[in-house]
Amino acid sequence: MSKSTSNIQKLSETAKVDELSTQPFPNSEKIYIEGSRPDVRVAMREVSLSPTHLQDGSLEDNPSVRIYDTSGVYTDPSVSIDVRTGLDPMRAGWVAERNDTVELDRFTSEYTRLRDQNITLETLRFDHISKPRRALPGKNVTQLHYARQGIITPEMEYIAIRENLALEEKAVEEAAKDQHPGMNFGANTPKFITPEFVRSEVAAGRAVIPANINHPESEPMIIGRNFLVKINANIGNSAVTSSIEEEVEKMVWSTRWGGDTVMDLSTGKNIHETREWIVRNSPVPIGTVPIYQALEKVDGVAEDLTWEIFRDTLIEQAEQGVDYFTIHAGVLLPYVPMTAKRVTGIVSRGGSIMAKWCLAHHKENFLYTHFEDICEILKAYDVTFSLGDGLRPGCIADANDEAQFSELRTLGELTKIAWEHDVQVFIEGPGHVPMHMVKENMDEQLKHCHEAPFYTLGPLVTDISPGYDHFSSGIGAAMIGWYGCAMLCYVTPKEHLGLPNRDDVKEGIITYKIAAHSADLAKGHPSSQIRDNALSKARFEFRWEDQFNLSLDPDRAREFHDETLPKESAKVAHFCSMCGPKFCSMKITQEVRDYAAQQEAEKEAAEGMNEMSEKFRSEGSELYKEV
Amino acid sequence: MSKSTSNIQKLSETAKVDELSTQPFPNSEKIYIEGSRPDVRVAMREVSLSPTHLQDGSLEDNPSVRIYDTSGVYTDPSVSIDVRTGLDPMRAGWVAERNDTVELDRFTSEYTRLRDQNITLETLRFDHISKPRRALPGKNVTQLHYARQGIITPEMEYIAIRENLALEEKAVEEAAKDQHPGMNFGANTPKFITPEFVRSEVAAGRAVIPANINHPESEPMIIGRNFLVKINANIGNSAVTSSIEEEVEKMVWSTRWGGDTVMDLSTGKNIHETREWIVRNSPVPIGTVPIYQALEKVDGVAEDLTWEIFRDTLIEQAEQGVDYFTIHAGVLLPYVPMTAKRVTGIVSRGGSIMAKWCLAHHKENFLYTHFEDICEILKAYDVTFSLGDGLRPGCIADANDEAQFSELRTLGELTKIAWEHDVQVFIEGPGHVPMHMVKENMDEQLKHCHEAPFYTLGPLVTDISPGYDHFSSGIGAAMIGWYGCAMLCYVTPKEHLGLPNRDDVKEGIITYKIAAHSADLAKGHPSSQIRDNALSKARFEFRWEDQFNLSLDPDRAREFHDETLPKESAKVAHFCSMCGPKFCSMKITQEVRDYAAQQEAEKEAAEGMNEMSEKFRSEGSELYKEV
Repeated sequence: MSKSTSNIQKLSETAKVDELSTQPFPNSEKIYIEGSRPDVRVAMREVSLSPTHLQDGSLEDNPSVRIYDTSGVYTDPSVSIDVRTGLDPMRAGWVAERNDTVELDRFTSEYTRLRDQNITLETLRFDHISKPRRALPGKNVTQLHYARQGIITPEMEYIAIRENLALEEKAVEEAAKDQHPGMNFGANTPKFITPEFVRSEVAAGRAVIPANINHPESEPMIIGRNFLVKINANIGNSAVTSSIEEEVEKMVWSTRWGGDTVMDLSTGKNIHETREWIVRNSPVPIGTVPIYQALEKVDGVAEDLTWEIFRDTLIEQAEQGVDYFTIHAGVLLPYVPMTAKRVTGIVSRGGSIMAKWCLAHHKENFLYTHFEDICEILKAYDVTFSLGDGLRPGCIADANDEAQFSELRTLGELTKIAWEHDVQVFIEGPGHVPMHMVKENMDEQLKHCHEAPFYTLGPLVTDISPGYDHFSSGIGAAMIGWYGCAMLCYVTPKEHLGLPNRDDVKEGIITYKIAAHSADLAKGHPSSQIRDNALSKARFEFRWEDQFNLSLDPDRAREFHDETLPKESAKVAHFCSMCGPKFCSMKITQEVRDYAAQQEAEKEAAEGMNEMSEKFRSEGSELYKEV
Repeated sequence: MSKSTSNIQKLSETAKVDELSTQPFPNSEKIYIEGSRPDVRVAMREVSLSPTHLQDGSLEDNPSVRIYDTSGVYTDPSVSIDVRTGLDPMRAGWVAERNDTVELDRFTSEYTRLRDQNITLETLRFDHISKPRRALPGKNVTQLHYARQGIITPEMEYIAIRENLALEEKAVEEAAKDQHPGMNFGANTPKFITPEFVRSEVAAGRAVIPANINHPESEPMIIGRNFLVKINANIGNSAVTSSIEEEVEKMVWSTRWGGDTVMDLSTGKNIHETREWIVRNSPVPIGTVPIYQALEKVDGVAEDLTWEIFRDTLIEQAEQGVDYFTIHAGVLLPYVPMTAKRVTGIVSRGGSIMAKWCLAHHKENFLYTHFEDICEILKAYDVTFSLGDGLRPGCIADANDEAQFSELRTLGELTKIAWEHDVQVFIEGPGHVPMHMVKENMDEQLKHCHEAPFYTLGPLVTDISPGYDHFSSGIGAAMIGWYGCAMLCYVTPKEHLGLPNRDDVKEGIITYKIAAHSADLAKGHPSSQIRDNALSKARFEFRWEDQFNLSLDPDRAREFHDETLPKESAKVAHFCSMCGPKFCSMKITQEVRDYAAQQEAEKEAAEGMNEMSEKFRSEGSELYKEV
């Protein structure tokens, strides 16, 4: 490309986020709950409801419903969004005040420096890059380290408020009365989540707070089985398709619909620049698989990978602000031949890259042999380990086999090593597993990985559903979420077929929000049933607008309703097109209820009479009592 | 409407089914497996696969895969379809040869006679109505009755072949080696399904064969927990929308994608004529809720319902050929007030109608008091009971409550009464139930309903997903299918919002096929993993076309793939747009496999050397052995 860059419009001048991603949700307000200090301001969405029309014509208010909100300021109409400058670094003060980090004059990574000097990248570059931070020599800046020192960080307090849906303890207790007791397989879900509980779970390694000191824009969140089940959305361009702006758009779009974290799995060109744009604009933690980029650096030849190239990539990404790294350190040389007779061999990209490297050099996986070196890097930025399951099954036939569980046990050993360094860890899981074998995955993970959080990709419970794999994986995801899996990596309808577009991303996310929320209900997470109850009450009372607004996807709920009954009047009608005016069971039930109340009143009156007559009889049936 | 009917085109002259519904599936052949007699010809779909390209350049054949097929002759290009004449009555001979029925000169139902005389209906009427059949006096024509006499009917033989996917016993045994042993909670799934096993399950009441003698067009199928999990699709117009032709179209469309039965839930006008068109053209059993039509006959006033009107409706529908009736005989007067404090009261339409009737008359439900009269009617036509769950929960909050389980126990009592009459029975179930409370539904049903098959609507595992309730119910459906539920009633994306269109019906069906098939895998139904294994192998070998063709929805799989890589060449490419050419894990795995094979060979060679040297040493290290 010999074209002068001056003729090409710079992304830093033109980039913007689609308006669809910044529309506030209907009848919703973005609220900020202040914690113990003014700069702990927990963002939440509050949906206002209309009143109930009682039979006597009076109105009864319905309390507004608070909803856990991952969309950041994008859905706050009072904030003007400019993706060219990035989000406000809300956590920057918290990081600085801990006095254990230093702002570096320049980036440590050789590769970053080369990219920065490359003039041909001017058109793509993000314009407002801050200087990177790193731990002071000898310091450890992980949330796990603080937790073990007994320190409750502002991040932990933020999370406690967020997990309680910003409700007071009393309100949570009240809500528990209208909620089924859950069944949580030995988890330790509290009735109310305190900052101290957050700290203790992090200290125990049962939960992680992915929060790189170089990603101060992210809103604190937690991944652990005693908290709300989280979901991850994958984005990322490949060599074949997609641009930087599209990826930023997908990230914003993902968080709008409920993505708790976003993994940037880019494998094409300009991975470095794409990531900068994503991190600077992301209100949620960003995860990556650094081996993808390392492989790009050696032109896709796995055998040419070296520890040095990988190490520089880790530092490059850590200084950009990536919050967690998938590291396939459990793909050991002796396990590789265990996959040879599988129906689908190794299906993890990272896993197959490392397997190829191991075999080519006939050496042990350098991610395993350098594991403590990796810990040293991660603790200087607070990057969390996502220990990759490079040998996960790629089909039903290969589920729960020797290769898979051998790797899992190694991940358990590595967890202990990471913990010795106070580095946060969670564990990745499958994949493709039939329903009756899903629980074994959770049980084995809990047993061998010492309760470090589990993070699974589905699993798909059948292989025959290309085009609908978001759903077949969603079944497995809901189940394993109930069994104790802390985060569910979404699958889109395009899985196994192609790169997801915007609609696919949304479809995948909503599917996984359903799985995660269903798991919260089944586990009995405090307050989790409030939204279901409010929506059901609205449904029963024909408050259509409230029903739409409380839905995971208000747009679609409204659109589907309007397809058959588009008129505004139908939204106050006491029927829908499903049954027609005469046949509505909801309407009839109300009549039954009125009738039952009347019967009850009559019964009480009759009982009153009986009581009186009983009294009369017992007192000798005399009409006039003697005084 | 004073317009002369002669000016209006008659449906019997114009009606046709959409071409989309009669396209054969790609690379598939409709095969017919002959049983013990030439008129037992079991329809099945056989998908041909392309060969595997081995490393040495040679080709290895992949066996074709047989798929359970509910689409009837609509997908057989050798049959010309004409919905105006209806399907070939394949079971007519079987019914006639049993010599226990009589062909009536005219319809028994008063209502049917009135409709037949109504000249204004000429334009709507189906033109080729056969004379109805009924049991000879004193005869019982149910499959349960035959089964208990030790008779294996042609229907039972057809089913045995169908459930084995038309595979020989040896092939099923072979397939079991490549399948995970299932976990079936005490069910008694055999390794191979024989006609005698079918008979014994029907005799025990653990399975039903819905097969009205007046619906000889239907292909025999079975509902029971020791068989493949079935799904039902609901269709039906309402007062607000939809026409006869659309409903026939929906029925054909439903069976195309895998609907095992279809319920016609029409509540608008011309229910009678609509049903005739549907039954005459349906290759699968048709179910109805007769109370819907009875209510139409009394202008929607529940209080005006009488046993006489209902009785005539049952006979009307039985003589048209409806295969199963939902009868809400368990909604008892004392249970109604139990629903008064629910969040969503009574949500079953039939349930709320009966509750209203009970309260209005302060009498016990006439379906309960006339239950034995109903049995008398059903056994004369072999209509199967689907005992309705009129008090099922309509939201998570109301799940598994006193009202619901009280009704369930009554359904158990009624099951025994039906069985005394040799009438087939299955039991309907919820509804809305959080994941951790789903199993209790199955357990209670097995316990109180004596193992009669269970048939649930979902259940939805959360209430916050309007627009996606096919999926949130699909989670519950998959789980309860695994636990032992025999048939899953689908839910479409329009549930709670409006009437489903064609796309919604397909989306609902595919979602439920995934749920049902996942349950079959989990239970370990014989041969159920063959299709998964074949698809996974195709996926691993980049046989894209085979992957599409083995999918539940080949059209969507192909369409999604082509969105990013439309060229034909991409369908033989060893990568997809997801990862690009360098990064394909499948490709790398194949290289790993080749490498591992080489290592193995070297190891064997080395072992051979060691063995030789060991032998040499053990024999005294002498170079020349003494003779």
